[in-house]
Parts: sequence; structure tokens; C-alpha cells
Amino acid sequence: MESANDADTDFPLQNLPYGVFRQAGQPFRCGVAIGKYVLDLALLEGLGLLDVARGRPVFADPSLNAFMSLGSFCWNSVRQQLLNLLAFGGDDRLQANAEAANRALVPLNDVELSLPFRVAEYTDFYSSRQHAFNVGSMFRDPENALPPNWLHMPIGYNGRASTVVVSPSAIRRPHGQIRDLGQPAPALRPSAHLDFELEMGAIVGSPSPIGSRLSVEQADDMIFGYVILNDWSARDVQTWEYQPLGPFQSKAFGTSISPWIVTKAALEPFRTSTPDREIALLDYLREPRPMSYDIAMDVALQPANATVETVISKTNYKHLYYSAAQQLAHHAVSGCAMTIGDLLGSGTISGPTEGSYGSLLELTRGGKKPLRLGNGESRTFLEDGDKVTMRARAGKKGNAIGFGACSGIVLPAR
Amino acid sequence: MESANDADTDFPLQNLPYGVFRQAGQPFRCGVAIGKYVLDLALLEGLGLLDVARGRPVFADPSLNAFMSLGSFCWNSVRQQLLNLLAFGGDDRLQANAEAANRALVPLNDVELSLPFRVAEYTDFYSSRQHAFNVGSMFRDPENALPPNWLHMPIGYNGRASTVVVSPSAIRRPHGQIRDLGQPAPALRPSAHLDFELEMGAIVGSPSPIGSRLSVEQADDMIFGYVILNDWSARDVQTWEYQPLGPFQSKAFGTSISPWIVTKAALEPFRTSTPDREIALLDYLREPRPMSYDIAMDVALQPANATVETVISKTNYKHLYYSAAQQLAHHAVSGCAMTIGDLLGSGTISGPTEGSYGSLLELTRGGKKPLRLGNGESRTFLEDGDKVTMRARAGKKGNAIGFGACSGIVLPAR
Repeated sequence: MESANDADTDFPLQNLPYGVFRQAGQPFRCGVAIGKYVLDLALLEGLGLLDVARGRPVFADPSLNAFMSLGSFCWNSVRQQLLNLLAFGGDDRLQANAEAANRALVPLNDVELSLPFRVAEYTDFYSSRQHAFNVGSMFRDPENALPPNWLHMPIGYNGRASTVVVSPSAIRRPHGQIRDLGQPAPALRPSAHLDFELEMGAIVGSPSPIGSRLSVEQADDMIFGYVILNDWSARDVQTWEYQPLGPFQSKAFGTSISPWIVTKAALEPFRTSTPDREIALLDYLREPRPMSYDIAMDVALQPANATVETVISKTNYKHLYYSAAQQLAHHAVSGCAMTIGDLLGSGTISGPTEGSYGSLLELTRGGKKPLRLGNGESRTFLEDGDKVTMRARAGKKGNAIGFGACSGIVLPAR
Repeated sequence: MESANDADTDFPLQNLPYGVFRQAGQPFRCGVAIGKYVLDLALLEGLGLLDVARGRPVFADPSLNAFMSLGSFCWNSVRQQLLNLLAFGGDDRLQANAEAANRALVPLNDVELSLPFRVAEYTDFYSSRQHAFNVGSMFRDPENALPPNWLHMPIGYNGRASTVVVSPSAIRRPHGQIRDLGQPAPALRPSAHLDFELEMGAIVGSPSPIGSRLSVEQADDMIFGYVILNDWSARDVQTWEYQPLGPFQSKAFGTSISPWIVTKAALEPFRTSTPDREIALLDYLREPRPMSYDIAMDVALQPANATVETVISKTNYKHLYYSAAQQLAHHAVSGCAMTIGDLLGSGTISGPTEGSYGSLLELTRGGKKPLRLGNGESRTFLEDGDKVTMRARAGKKGNAIGFGACSGIVLPAR
């Protein structure tokens, strides 16, 4: 079984991220990634090697929603069973059954991955202080870049769930109303300022009923896991449309997520505190213990004709001022019901230095300072054929776990 | 069968609105309202009196989503079949079968109604010129009350689908971050400025794929029908939170809709044009024919101890500057995929005069001019125990059709 694991992989034994996969001609079903393989959980469940729900099987579903609905006790139990089945010296029922082990481990190269869960609703936050400052300076007033509410609450807005797609994805350049500087009226045309936003997505695995609030601790318990998220944005559309009710069509044409959900359990060793508070938070947002994670993230850009990608940003999830648990507690503060499959975007993750910004808007100062790429080309915003790849990894060599990649290629406007 | 209909009802033969109902101890299923009865469509389908999908039955479902998914040809066919079954001189298979007719017509008084469809996503627009002007004057600057984009596009934002509830509903007064005038920091407390918003909701019955735009005509074809919608709002929370990304928790605690979906087919006789354009629209938003409706709407308020309600606003859907078809065309302009069960709120419907405003915020000028109620009480914003009832009716006596009521009672904060 050593072959399923290897030191350089994003998916060592201590990761076990969940996804939904199929081989050609077979139905989509749930699995976990281990090394260069997918472990077929539907098969293990069918063979009686996993004790999950006792009732109907959950892993033959083409989404993880049914499994998530069983709750955190069951998530932890299945993780323990999987660790036992896969580690030497544990439960040897799988390792002793060469035929079953062989069928259950499907090479990653042979599978197609789908969205790992049905997205109930998608909410996007704005929780990087540096990003809020950078964008506030450009879209509004550098003197008052940070809105007065920003240090008191994780600002968020409802996004569009119907266009969340799984990596690798083709993203069609959107049309939208765009008004040029000095013009009285807008025109309908393809966005010329297409951008990415480097984010992490938290997946709500347990529901909360309408009318109830959540503590940060309760909120953290409800989170099943995390994926990398690219909140593609049309900046020229956004500038014209976003006042007074927020972004709408400028963010509605596509949001990419990575296909493997890295569980909260796997991320435990990398827990860390959010940055020091500049102003004390209200009680309902205070964290009883570290609720953020130390996860290195980067963004690479590869033009259509380039042979290699250029890494254009390196940052870390821990820079975020608000954790996903705080975001979720705030999301429910009015009594808003939360649903299994809700996706919470962290907001663009921009670190404190120029090379750590999470969008082209910030990296190129609104298009004024083009970025040089490795192949000699330069970029202000994305061009057709550009491939954007985001990666994330927690820990150091030997105990690192990764998220795989979240990539997308820009298609020309239709 | 005359007893099923009557001249004063909201639900005469030419209406036939769809809902989901059950009697005590029975499962929820689909029906249409006719006079004081619900016609049990699951029963008719089971008896072979309706030719619907040939495949699996759709009306035994506890939502109308499966029926909507069959498309507008089928919607029209079922309407014709129902008109035939219910009208004298038509298809007499139901009228000739007294036992079946008796079982199929269930008194409205004996049923419980549920949400008529599974809400996929909820989008709220801002399409009343008077409302945008009134709110812009209060929240921002009276000199520049209308945002520069307002006359060019139906401004909208994504709302929260998980808290859409069916009338009659109990709405729990929400907590939220509220900052008092002159205070540096907010507090968490129950909203003291709880408000309603009188809206119409359009229900998307046909999907559109990611990456495709829609003409206004195509968008209109995709709309299945309309309900009254109350977008409950916490104004004190909204003021503090809404910049820069729009309303979030101030609108997330509850949205009520009326239980009967009045179909586009039933509303055809009441089609009318949207108001004259003040600035020409871009082509993709131009209406090839009348796309709005002449529907009288009103709001009544009844305090806990009052024996009667007071009508506090009378307005008309036709005042809206943008139709639901225009809103939907704009919603998809970026290539945003639309889903069966998407709910589009029209935005608060405020007419040109003070008595026709669609929210307390406007009716009381931000709480500065209390409203006198019939029982001698006055109101600036909603108090615990207040019952808000919205009604809508198209046409004049003899050919009128109604929407029933959308009502909700305010419960004290928890």
C-alpha cells in the first residue's frame, strides 16, 4: 500500500480529502484522495469495510451532501476508520484483500472529478485587511479606504451558487454594462478587466435553523472542510454596477473551486490565531481558541502560448482578519438559517507585501503597473487563453498536506 | 361545480394559481385554488384526468419544481385541460364523476399550505424609481438620490434563499450590529427599526445554461408566475452594514411569499407597458411588447391588540420602471446560469404619492413622521405582535383575479 502514498504528494495519509469522481462509463461517487489514487468509498461501503450510516449508503451519491448531513461525529468516525484501513498495523481487512484493495484504489489519472458537493448558497466575504484597504483605495478614497464597519464585522454579500464550477474549468469572458471614464452612458460589451481573486472556500456541513444564532465555537463545529476558490471578477462591470447594492453580474459568471475538500480534521495541526484585533470585537465574534490556519497559497499565470507558468503571488490564509468560523457566526447573527452545502468564500487573500496580493487589480495597481511574466509577456488584466492556477499547502516537508490545484482557462467572449 | 367559484373570490376560473397543500395527516402535494377550494392535481393526475408528463407523476411532489421543469408548452397544456375540466360545456369527465369531483375539491379551510416551490436562489431588485429616490435621499444624498447606473440597468443583489417562508409566517425580530448616531462602535441588539417591503416575486420556471445571455422575450418565456413578496428589513442593521457590498444580515432573517403562484397565463389580460424611459436602454433590455402588469396592491397593518387592520399603502405593480423580464435578462447578461425555482423580488413597489409607498421607512420618512393607525396607535417601525398583510389584485369586478394574502406577525427577539 506504500505506493498509494508518497512524501511529495498533496495527499498523504494524514490528509484524506473528499471528492466526487468517476471512471469513463461509471457513475459519479465519493472518494478520498491518497497519493496518486482515489480510494473508492462507495466500494468500501458496499463491501462493509466502512461503518457509516447503518441506513442507506451515502458514498454512492454523486455529492458529499448526504455524508455531510450525518454530522461531525460521523465525519470523525469515518476518518478514523479510513486511517485504520490504510495504515499498517491497523484494520487489515482491506490490505489483506488484494483484489478489493486493487479495485478500491483508482489511479487519479484515470478519473474525472465533479463538484464535490451540491452548493446550497454561496456567500463571499471581504476579510483580508490588506485587500479591503487596497480595493478601498482604488474604488473609493485612499484616505478612508477601510469602511467604518470593517474592523467590527466580517463584511460579506450573497453570491451566485448556480455558477460555482469545479477545477479545471473554462471560464467564458463575460459581457456586461461598462461605462468608460467621462462617458455619460454605458455600453454592453465583453469585460476588458477580467481578474481572478485568490480565496479559500469553507463548506458548511451541518445546518442551523431559522431564528437561531451561533457562537464562533458552534460555527467552527459546523464547517466540514475547505477548498481553494477563485472568485473570477469583471472589474469594469463591477465599478459601474456595485453601488449601492454590491457586486452582481461582475461576479456571477463563474466561481471555480478545487475538487478535493480538505477536512477540518486534517487541518487541525495547522490551526493558528487570526491577527491581533485592532479594535475589540463584540462578544459573538470572539474566538475561544485559534480558528485560522497556516496555509501557504500561491497563484500562477500561464498565457496561451507560454510553455511554463509564472508564479505571480505568494500569500498565506493566516493573513485573514476574520476566520471562517467568525464569518459563519456573523452570517447567522440575524437568525439566518444555514444549510448543508453552503459555501463561504474567505474574500481575496492579500498579504502585507506587493508580491502577496490576491488579485490582478491589486498586483497591477488597477492596471497601471503591468506584471512581467516569465515568457516576456506582460499583463494588466487576464487575456483570452490565460490559465490561472492556485495552489495551497499547509505544513512543511514530511508533514505537509495540500489542496491540489484550482485552475481555469479564460475563453473568449461569445 | 358553481360552488367552487364565486364572483368575489381571488381565485375565479380564469386564475387557477398553483400551490402545495395537505390535509391533516396527508402528504403535501400540488393543487390549484378555485373559489374556496383546492383542486387536488395529484388526484386528477392519478385518475388519468390530466395528461401531463407521460413519465413519472409531477403533482404528487411536495413542490411545483418538477411540473415547472416540463416547460411552458406543458404549463399551457395543463392550464387548458384544467379550464376544460372545470368549465361547463368542456371536458365532462370530472363533472360527470361526482365521487371524484368531491374528493378532488378540498375546502381551502381544511388545508395547510407550504412553500409552493423549492427556492433555488433568491435575487432582490431595486426597480421602483420612487423607492430608489426615497431611500437614496435618506441613506445618501437627496441631491444625488438616484445612483448614476439606475436608469441604465435593473440594479439587483443576491439575497438569501434559506429564509424564504410561506405566508402566514411568524417573523422573529432579528439581532444585528447597530451603531447609534455619534457612537464610535456598534452594539449587538434586537433591531428597533424593523420594516416590511412590499414586492412582487417572479418565479423562474425554465433554466438557462451558464455562458448564455437572454433576450427580454426569452426571459419572459422562462417566468412561470408571480407571488406577493415581503422583504422584511432591519433598517438600523442595514444602515451600518450595507457599505460597500450591499445588504446582508439586515435582509437575511426572513422573506415571506404568498402561497399561490399566479401564472403568467392568468395575468395576460392585465399586461401593460413599463413607464416611459427617461434614457434609452441598451438593446438587451428593450421590451418588444408590454412586459409589466396592472396589479393593484396594498399593505395593511394590525397591532396585536387591534380588532381591525389599517390599510397604510395602496400602490400598483405597474409603477415599476423595470419588468421581471428585464430583470431576468439583466441577471443573465454575464452568462449567469438561471435555475428552476429562482425567485426574483421586484424591489419595493412605491408609487408616486406618499400613500403609495411600499415601506415604513418611506411612509414615515425614516421614522420622523409616525403613521396613525385606525385604533389610535401610531407607528414609525414595526412593533412586536404587529401583523402585516399584503394583497394584490388585477382587473375589475367581474374579471378580477387575486393573489390571496401575504401576511406575517412579528415575534419578539429571542
